[in-house]
Amino acid sequence: MSSTEYQVDRRELQFVINESLEAGKLCELPDFSEFDEEIFSMIINEASTFSEQVLAPLNENGDRQGCRIADGSVVTPDGFADAWKQLGEGGWLSMNMPVEYGGQGLPEVISIIGKETQMAANQGFTIGASLTSGAANLIYTFGSEEQKIEFCQKMFSGEWSGSMCLTEPQAGSAVGDVTTSATRQEDGHYLIKGTKQFITNGDHDMADNIIHLLLARTSDAPAGTKGISLFIVPKIRKDGSPNDVKVLSLEHKMGINGSPTCLLSFGDNADCHGYLLKAENLGMAQMFQLMNEARLLVGLQGLAGAGAAVQNAWAYAKERTQGSSAVNPGEKAAIVEFPDVRRMLMQMKAVTEGLRALMYTTAWYSDMAHHGPEDSREKYQDLLDLHIPVCKAFGTDQGFDVARIGIQVLGGVGFTQDFPLEQNARDQKIASIYEGTNGIQALDLVGRKFSTKKGQLLKVLENELGWFDQHTPSGELAGWVAEWENYRALIQESINNLKNIGETQGKDGYILYAVNMLDLLGDVLCCFYLLKQAQTAQTKWETLLAGVASEEQLLEENEEAQFYWNKLRTTEFYVWSILPRALSNAKTIKNANLAPLKACL
Amino acid sequence: MSSTEYQVDRRELQFVINESLEAGKLCELPDFSEFDEEIFSMIINEASTFSEQVLAPLNENGDRQGCRIADGSVVTPDGFADAWKQLGEGGWLSMNMPVEYGGQGLPEVISIIGKETQMAANQGFTIGASLTSGAANLIYTFGSEEQKIEFCQKMFSGEWSGSMCLTEPQAGSAVGDVTTSATRQEDGHYLIKGTKQFITNGDHDMADNIIHLLLARTSDAPAGTKGISLFIVPKIRKDGSPNDVKVLSLEHKMGINGSPTCLLSFGDNADCHGYLLKAENLGMAQMFQLMNEARLLVGLQGLAGAGAAVQNAWAYAKERTQGSSAVNPGEKAAIVEFPDVRRMLMQMKAVTEGLRALMYTTAWYSDMAHHGPEDSREKYQDLLDLHIPVCKAFGTDQGFDVARIGIQVLGGVGFTQDFPLEQNARDQKIASIYEGTNGIQALDLVGRKFSTKKGQLLKVLENELGWFDQHTPSGELAGWVAEWENYRALIQESINNLKNIGETQGKDGYILYAVNMLDLLGDVLCCFYLLKQAQTAQTKWETLLAGVASEEQLLEENEEAQFYWNKLRTTEFYVWSILPRALSNAKTIKNANLAPLKACL
Repeated sequence: MSSTEYQVDRRELQFVINESLEAGKLCELPDFSEFDEEIFSMIINEASTFSEQVLAPLNENGDRQGCRIADGSVVTPDGFADAWKQLGEGGWLSMNMPVEYGGQGLPEVISIIGKETQMAANQGFTIGASLTSGAANLIYTFGSEEQKIEFCQKMFSGEWSGSMCLTEPQAGSAVGDVTTSATRQEDGHYLIKGTKQFITNGDHDMADNIIHLLLARTSDAPAGTKGISLFIVPKIRKDGSPNDVKVLSLEHKMGINGSPTCLLSFGDNADCHGYLLKAENLGMAQMFQLMNEARLLVGLQGLAGAGAAVQNAWAYAKERTQGSSAVNPGEKAAIVEFPDVRRMLMQMKAVTEGLRALMYTTAWYSDMAHHGPEDSREKYQDLLDLHIPVCKAFGTDQGFDVARIGIQVLGGVGFTQDFPLEQNARDQKIASIYEGTNGIQALDLVGRKFSTKKGQLLKVLENELGWFDQHTPSGELAGWVAEWENYRALIQESINNLKNIGETQGKDGYILYAVNMLDLLGDVLCCFYLLKQAQTAQTKWETLLAGVASEEQLLEENEEAQFYWNKLRTTEFYVWSILPRALSNAKTIKNANLAPLKACL
Repeated sequence: MSSTEYQVDRRELQFVINESLEAGKLCELPDFSEFDEEIFSMIINEASTFSEQVLAPLNENGDRQGCRIADGSVVTPDGFADAWKQLGEGGWLSMNMPVEYGGQGLPEVISIIGKETQMAANQGFTIGASLTSGAANLIYTFGSEEQKIEFCQKMFSGEWSGSMCLTEPQAGSAVGDVTTSATRQEDGHYLIKGTKQFITNGDHDMADNIIHLLLARTSDAPAGTKGISLFIVPKIRKDGSPNDVKVLSLEHKMGINGSPTCLLSFGDNADCHGYLLKAENLGMAQMFQLMNEARLLVGLQGLAGAGAAVQNAWAYAKERTQGSSAVNPGEKAAIVEFPDVRRMLMQMKAVTEGLRALMYTTAWYSDMAHHGPEDSREKYQDLLDLHIPVCKAFGTDQGFDVARIGIQVLGGVGFTQDFPLEQNARDQKIASIYEGTNGIQALDLVGRKFSTKKGQLLKVLENELGWFDQHTPSGELAGWVAEWENYRALIQESINNLKNIGETQGKDGYILYAVNMLDLLGDVLCCFYLLKQAQTAQTKWETLLAGVASEEQLLEENEEAQFYWNKLRTTEFYVWSILPRALSNAKTIKNANLAPLKACL
């Protein structure tokens, strides 16, 4: 590990993918039959190498140099264009994309290995990549055969990139307020006119063309979200002529300075061509259908930032000396000796591994929902739908908090630009805002997901959380699971409390503490998936222990044993020292105080 | 209020100072007999005007332009030197300093009005001012008559500034590891040699001279903290010749870019003169004696940042529209209508006002400890000593969190540099680290303060928290106080739990969850002082209500009534929606999990 550079925790990824989730079993499904566990292990290694060697070295300069406009076009930081080329050529943009257009058709749970490590190495660079995947996926899903042929392969390979143009100055969270217009022309294309704000990688110099996926309103469209259509608006048209799209300015931001955030003007000269995706007025539905993937990727930004932070902080705590050692008398103490530093590191590690357990499982649910046995697909789709807002909101809030603690572990130097922690925190801060603010995620959870199909999603979850009824925990794990069960009970109790408020106080009362409900669920789920991991780790640990004289001896000489031991300690810490946060959220929901609605403004 | 500029909440300061703390009564004490409540009100207004009109306009450029070294000296951002002159001439550097050297001798609780508003307007600028006050205070307290005459007046007036030179590259939290040497010369002065790191305002162009207060080790000094002495090391000597002090470099930081953080080299040419303060080997004791004030000022940085954030976010939420209004059909909704936004604003407001109640009360304790009736001074000193680490650590952690929520209220624009929230968060982050990290504060609390004088400080606190036994709450307040009492009981319960861990697991176990203990105490104290404020507000509210037909009518037409109403709502929210955090901390302490001590490194 390094305190200044990013290094992937390969052992942890191997454990999560192949030992805990047993991703190899996915290869028994027809869609994944050409893969096996060995390939997945190779991908872990290759993704790690690419992220460490190509993207991480560009991270600091990406922040310091940032992006600029020259001659009406955006210039990205030194090295970004070359890294983009390598990203595309390495197939990293199309890991989970369909094979027919050059994708690799890998499971989502494998695809996110690339996303996590790339994001951890360089958030500013990688964010744009996610948008290209998202835009390409929209065209693949809703485009005509002709459109797919024109765009998919080139976007999968990174030759062309993508952007998502939703937000306008007056329409952020209220997407239905979009006013950009699309006027149908006789030959079938539309003329687009409007201004789009906060467009990530809306212009840049890394690809030959940029394909904007843009929400606009056609003539006579119904008001609100029902009258929004989705268009393909390329920067360069098929005939090679430039489309009428202008970069007006770049945002000056707290972080992700390597990613140009553009204000774009479409149709200033009344000559911006857009091509309708499928049919008019389907825009919102189309966006929503692919929202799950996008929101999981934003959640991954939190996990990735947290993962990088814990690696850096842990390494620093081992190399930085301060004061006298209690362990090695006469020597200086590495600060990792101090209990408060250990507590901070353990908090970082437990939250990070909890988030990773949550998100990789969610990706696995996605694979099962789309490629699993027919009769279980609905179940996994239900779990996926319920987990997504938690991954996005809990993941990004907790990821930021882990980076914050990382700065604290480093002390004074953590506040300087000599170490990557402060940039990590700045880069991450956007993730709680975009792709639906975390408040919106909480509304989605309690307002939509809880009530979908008469509450079926919650019933499926309740059933899933009964795992330990069938897989009886033993040893120290038994006590941890028993404690966790108390918190599991808080989920239903808190949902009932929310409903009671709703009945007496109406909708505003019901959603007032939605964020607390989401956070409660986040902690209980992260701990659940960690406990499942711990059960696997415990078995392996016990097998290793069987051949050795003592725990101490095993821990001294065996790195594998250390890994499993630490996985158990991390889980233990989550149960007893992090999970109590759920008590606070449950009590706040129960108290149901309405002061925020009563205060004068 | 403004979403882009800082405006002081004058009404709140008037309430805290004159209505709740009744600071006017301090004027019955001999040391403050020349003041009265009217003067205090004037100071609130003047401090507000100075901060808003002189310091706030320099805040953004201070961050963007930053500091640089030119010709071996530090150049500060445009306008800073002139603002410094006005700060000195306005008497803001010496509000609580003794009159004999040009100070104003005001109570601490009045002095911090200046500090809070200046810090809120411009953290980068104001931090240096705190250090000048601190250095001058050290000389006033421990200097010879000659030294006081030479330095105090000029430092009180800002003609000269001060710096505190403690940290060295290898000696941060472990101050005892300082290796800078001081060699006594025949004529009484010392030759200083060494390197000092992270020196706030260690060089700049705002004052005619810089007086460094520097920790160094004399020849044959005992090892560790017992062998450290404190020296006055001026940048320019009495005879006008430059002393041998060099700026080697400036730190590149996450925030407070308006404040130069210097790496200083003393005695490169073996000609750096230092003048001993009082006697050798007293350095640590001298520093500690004045630590209370310094730590309260750092806590104020958290409060100030929080105060600015809540003003900006509240204003933005009222001006920003999004979606359709439920309150005014047919119109767009101001986002303040949305429950989740209201919840965030209320969280910001309640925490900020809780911190303000805590810190101004703590300053009032300081006044009573130093200037109150002889027979009560020890009691107030005990309360002061117990409150200081809470003000510093809880204040800065919570202040940062309030700024974080502020960014979230703004959404996308909160992440941009078009609004001051992101800079606010970046500037604040240092406050949890310097002047003793927040982890060190927690150790100070549970390791020193809890056991000082056989636990007397805790007994004094317990007695103080019995306030409502003598001042029976009525109406809605009665239920809030009853609920708060449950949490008050958690203090002693948690202390007992900590002690139990200590007895079975030793010191490392005892201090492992010190931070949770401090946070628990922080919430219970903030809520306590808010409840006391609420009792005052309730009386005023009821008086106003007496002459009016209904609550609604009163709230519609009377701004004073709105203020008291909101103070009650803020308190209510703290009790039911924030205080539950203490449950989480209490449970974590009770669980006493030792995984952090057991994990492999």
